[in-house]
Amino acid sequence: MPTITSVNVIDIRFPTSATLDGSDAMNPDGDYSAAYVVLETDEPDLAGYGLTFTIGRGNDLCVAAARQIGQRLTGCDVDQVAAGLGGLYRDIMADSQMRWLGPEKGVVHLSAAAVLNAAWDLAARRAGKPLWRLVADMSPEELVAACDFRYLSDALTPAEAVEMLTALAPTREARIAELAEHGYPGYTTSPGWLGYDDDKLRRLCREAVADGWTHVKLKVGARVEDDVRRLAIAREELGDRTLMIDANQVWDVPQAIDWVNRLAAYEPLWIEEPTSPDDILGHAAIRKAVAPVGVATGEHCHNRVMFKQLLQAGAIDYCQIDSCRLASVNEIIPVLLMAAKFGVPVCPHGGGVGLCELVQHMAIVDYVCVSGSLEGRVLEYVDHLHEHFTDPVRVERGRYRLPERPGYSARMHPESVAGYRYPDGHRWGG
Amino acid sequence: MPTITSVNVIDIRFPTSATLDGSDAMNPDGDYSAAYVVLETDEPDLAGYGLTFTIGRGNDLCVAAARQIGQRLTGCDVDQVAAGLGGLYRDIMADSQMRWLGPEKGVVHLSAAAVLNAAWDLAARRAGKPLWRLVADMSPEELVAACDFRYLSDALTPAEAVEMLTALAPTREARIAELAEHGYPGYTTSPGWLGYDDDKLRRLCREAVADGWTHVKLKVGARVEDDVRRLAIAREELGDRTLMIDANQVWDVPQAIDWVNRLAAYEPLWIEEPTSPDDILGHAAIRKAVAPVGVATGEHCHNRVMFKQLLQAGAIDYCQIDSCRLASVNEIIPVLLMAAKFGVPVCPHGGGVGLCELVQHMAIVDYVCVSGSLEGRVLEYVDHLHEHFTDPVRVERGRYRLPERPGYSARMHPESVAGYRYPDGHRWGG
Repeated sequence: MPTITSVNVIDIRFPTSATLDGSDAMNPDGDYSAAYVVLETDEPDLAGYGLTFTIGRGNDLCVAAARQIGQRLTGCDVDQVAAGLGGLYRDIMADSQMRWLGPEKGVVHLSAAAVLNAAWDLAARRAGKPLWRLVADMSPEELVAACDFRYLSDALTPAEAVEMLTALAPTREARIAELAEHGYPGYTTSPGWLGYDDDKLRRLCREAVADGWTHVKLKVGARVEDDVRRLAIAREELGDRTLMIDANQVWDVPQAIDWVNRLAAYEPLWIEEPTSPDDILGHAAIRKAVAPVGVATGEHCHNRVMFKQLLQAGAIDYCQIDSCRLASVNEIIPVLLMAAKFGVPVCPHGGGVGLCELVQHMAIVDYVCVSGSLEGRVLEYVDHLHEHFTDPVRVERGRYRLPERPGYSARMHPESVAGYRYPDGHRWGG
Repeated sequence: MPTITSVNVIDIRFPTSATLDGSDAMNPDGDYSAAYVVLETDEPDLAGYGLTFTIGRGNDLCVAAARQIGQRLTGCDVDQVAAGLGGLYRDIMADSQMRWLGPEKGVVHLSAAAVLNAAWDLAARRAGKPLWRLVADMSPEELVAACDFRYLSDALTPAEAVEMLTALAPTREARIAELAEHGYPGYTTSPGWLGYDDDKLRRLCREAVADGWTHVKLKVGARVEDDVRRLAIAREELGDRTLMIDANQVWDVPQAIDWVNRLAAYEPLWIEEPTSPDDILGHAAIRKAVAPVGVATGEHCHNRVMFKQLLQAGAIDYCQIDSCRLASVNEIIPVLLMAAKFGVPVCPHGGGVGLCELVQHMAIVDYVCVSGSLEGRVLEYVDHLHEHFTDPVRVERGRYRLPERPGYSARMHPESVAGYRYPDGHRWGG
């Protein structure tokens, strides 16, 4: 019986601010970073890898929090952890002293995500399965027992969740076979970072089309005249392919409405993060005023209670869960279930460090186990930093290939960990 | 011209879990703690003191975050800081790398509150005025310039804020004179901690009545039968005085409605924190279903955008701002203004360590500058840990006396700081 011998949490930062990759109207100069959790065991070649994603300063706070949250795993039996992921989640959330610092938001929640992601990864590796397959092999009852339904019963009860999962269980394998053949539809954000000039934007849009992408997303929100010009360029290159825009929270509600309506002629599918991620009612007001442009949000939606309300309020057309903002599979699956119940497609947030690697599993779980639909679903892809992962995403002609190797795909190469460890890795001059 | 020479942030924890003071249905064993910020200057006897409040584990995370956020103040001219508190706030919030960890919530926001509280304290001490007086001496335009209205314009614009403040400016002094004579109305939570047995509850209720309290709050939410029995005891002792109840977030929405309706016979004025603090729509649903019992929340309401929505959704009868959860005066005043515009009384959250000391200033500012009303207003009082402060609150016959000494009242005695410093203070065996 393997045992977890230590919980290592490492501060890893990539100096992405140097190239303006990842630049947007709110975040002009992020250094893509990870609080990277490794659950070491006494069995050779068995460990769990997880992370939460940040953009630089303060990554150390997540590292410190993940150490505190993770320490309870030292000495635990791997098979017991794997069989009790719901209990582990509840134990973490029940620490009322740490809960005070959220609750269920901010640094402590990001860090809980890192630890729980590593625990799910360990369970999947122990089972010799990719994470999506581990989940797809769980019964509806097992899955519901692993999830957090607290505060959700006015929108979705555990019994309803079992019913929804049960209805789709018999056809899971057929959908898996379909994904294995055709992959999961994606979109690319790589052409549209705000720091790129017009020529680079045009060139990257052209390349995206050549690479088979049918959906491309652009950052907007710095100057409306620039946005008009950039969208014109993108629309020219994309033809009748789908264009999305993302403002990264820079607007107040009335300003969002005006601005989006000025860009509506370029027929964006959605406006993403038009205002504060906390503003449920604001998103609902914007959605009403900018239709037929849809409203998307979620990468900063800090927990399932906020997603519940976004759905209850009719505030979103697209639900963008994030594998590092929500506290791992335990909290994501209830959101997938609520989104399915409310008829809102889930289009996860990729990009960053390792987010594509993680969220692909959740998109697959959504299709295979929860919603049974690909309609309106596209999974974000950004071509950053995949080379640091041992099992990077594979994207072909705009579609994600099904991950095949065991785990949650968040393991980094040892050389990357050593090189980008902050502040002492040699890439940081250490 | 005095200059800030260093920013010291100290981890202070009080072992309150030993006595069950502060115990409630969500937080059975908190160790009341503070991330305590001291802005030292090169002028003898001039420093700024601020804090954020936590309940133990994780206080170190707030300390680390406050160090990072506060470091920008080292070397700054005190008078420039005092004259530019709005700019300081915006500078802190504009750090997009730190912002990612919230945004504007959790550890980074709590820590921003600690640093900004210290900056406001320093400004008040430099001016030789209590904080409430510093604010009351600011013009409407100065006050609005110091505040954060981002994401609020669909509910309140800066121009409207100036108008509201201007309308009350001529009568500020009259209200100050009234408070100086009669004090500000308070209520006590001290009798009702969940860990106290029935005899202690009865004795403390009786003492509260003898001490002149007209409003008493009890914790509820562990077992409904216990709550019925405890409320019967409290009602017996209080007669027709006012009783409030506080569930500290333990219920789902339907459960909150059932539970509160079972306690309605004891005529509580409000049910506080019936469910997740993030659940705006849930609070609105509960409010509708439990009237005439009112709904109160706010101590965990993490920023002004959430308060905006609680007001827009008609979700609360009482708005409970907290001087450590919101990012200081800069963010609290916009909430006071919105509450006044929506006709909802502000009843700040006291208790903890130093919260009474801080929030009394905000209650006074609300009456003097913002709402001009005491109707429905009561300020929480808990008789914990005041002995550690150099300028503790003074409460007489259930009313807060106006603070007279310079500052924001959060300075602790040096012996308390040394004794309770974690983990090396001698009270912690250091």
